[in-house]
Amino acid sequence: MSQKDNKMNEMTGYDIEDLEIGMTATFSKTITEADIVLFAGVSGDNNAVHTNEEFASKTIFHGRIAHCMLSASVISAAIANKLPGPGTIYITQNLRFKAPVRAGDTVRAQVSVTEIFLDKQRARLRTECFVKGEPVIEGEALVRATSRKSRS
Amino acid sequence: MSQKDNKMNEMTGYDIEDLEIGMTATFSKTITEADIVLFAGVSGDNNAVHTNEEFASKTIFHGRIAHCMLSASVISAAIANKLPGPGTIYITQNLRFKAPVRAGDTVRAQVSVTEIFLDKQRARLRTECFVKGEPVIEGEALVRATSRKSRS
Repeated sequence: MSQKDNKMNEMTGYDIEDLEIGMTATFSKTITEADIVLFAGVSGDNNAVHTNEEFASKTIFHGRIAHCMLSASVISAAIANKLPGPGTIYITQNLRFKAPVRAGDTVRAQVSVTEIFLDKQRARLRTECFVKGEPVIEGEALVRATSRKSRS
Repeated sequence: MSQKDNKMNEMTGYDIEDLEIGMTATFSKTITEADIVLFAGVSGDNNAVHTNEEFASKTIFHGRIAHCMLSASVISAAIANKLPGPGTIYITQNLRFKAPVRAGDTVRAQVSVTEIFLDKQRARLRTECFVKGEPVIEGEALVRATSRKSRS
């Protein structure tokens, strides 16, 4: 087994022992009309500002916007797919919504390690989402990473 | 226009002027296999613990679980559909994940008004999710409600 293999859990996520403060990863996803329709279905959130163009066009948003929690879910993907990656378990997620996201916008979620609690197998992450470089969500997460020590 | 009509915005959500501390509403949704598959698609979060039974069965969860942010999205539905209801805009949402949710579980999201900032058109809500009476998510939200004063 190579050194690199040693440094990954079985699904190739980072173990808590290999995280360092400042490590950063991004995951991007274009939010489409279909995503908004499907998110309304899975969440039960059929707010007219997401699903009724005639209503939404008369609001301060001048048209339909994506659900805030849909954009925020791209953070979940960045954590699960990238950093710490597969095997990570969510403990907390705080979200501040800064600007609306519309169908066609590409949400870039960026997660950065800000604090590591080795004994508790936990890491604190700064979690941000951007559209064309502008912040749309800010916040932070606390997650439980996998651990080589726990596996052995 | 009846007194009741006066007390609702055009989409029948509560105006900030009509909120009172202690007001509570719930919205429930059964999380199905289909919801988990669709949420993986809209979020981009294909974590094996949600989509790979062979992997998930060997984890501490002993089987696939729903995405944390999928369960949390039912809170968004409770806010948008019930309290304050249509027209509400999310400002912040803090989430603490307490226990896993599985396909077939019915998530009951409960939101309660804990603080009102009339001049800023904002309300703080306690936001909780339960499965069979047990808490699976705790947290709070800050939202901007509609306002009769602003409309007139």
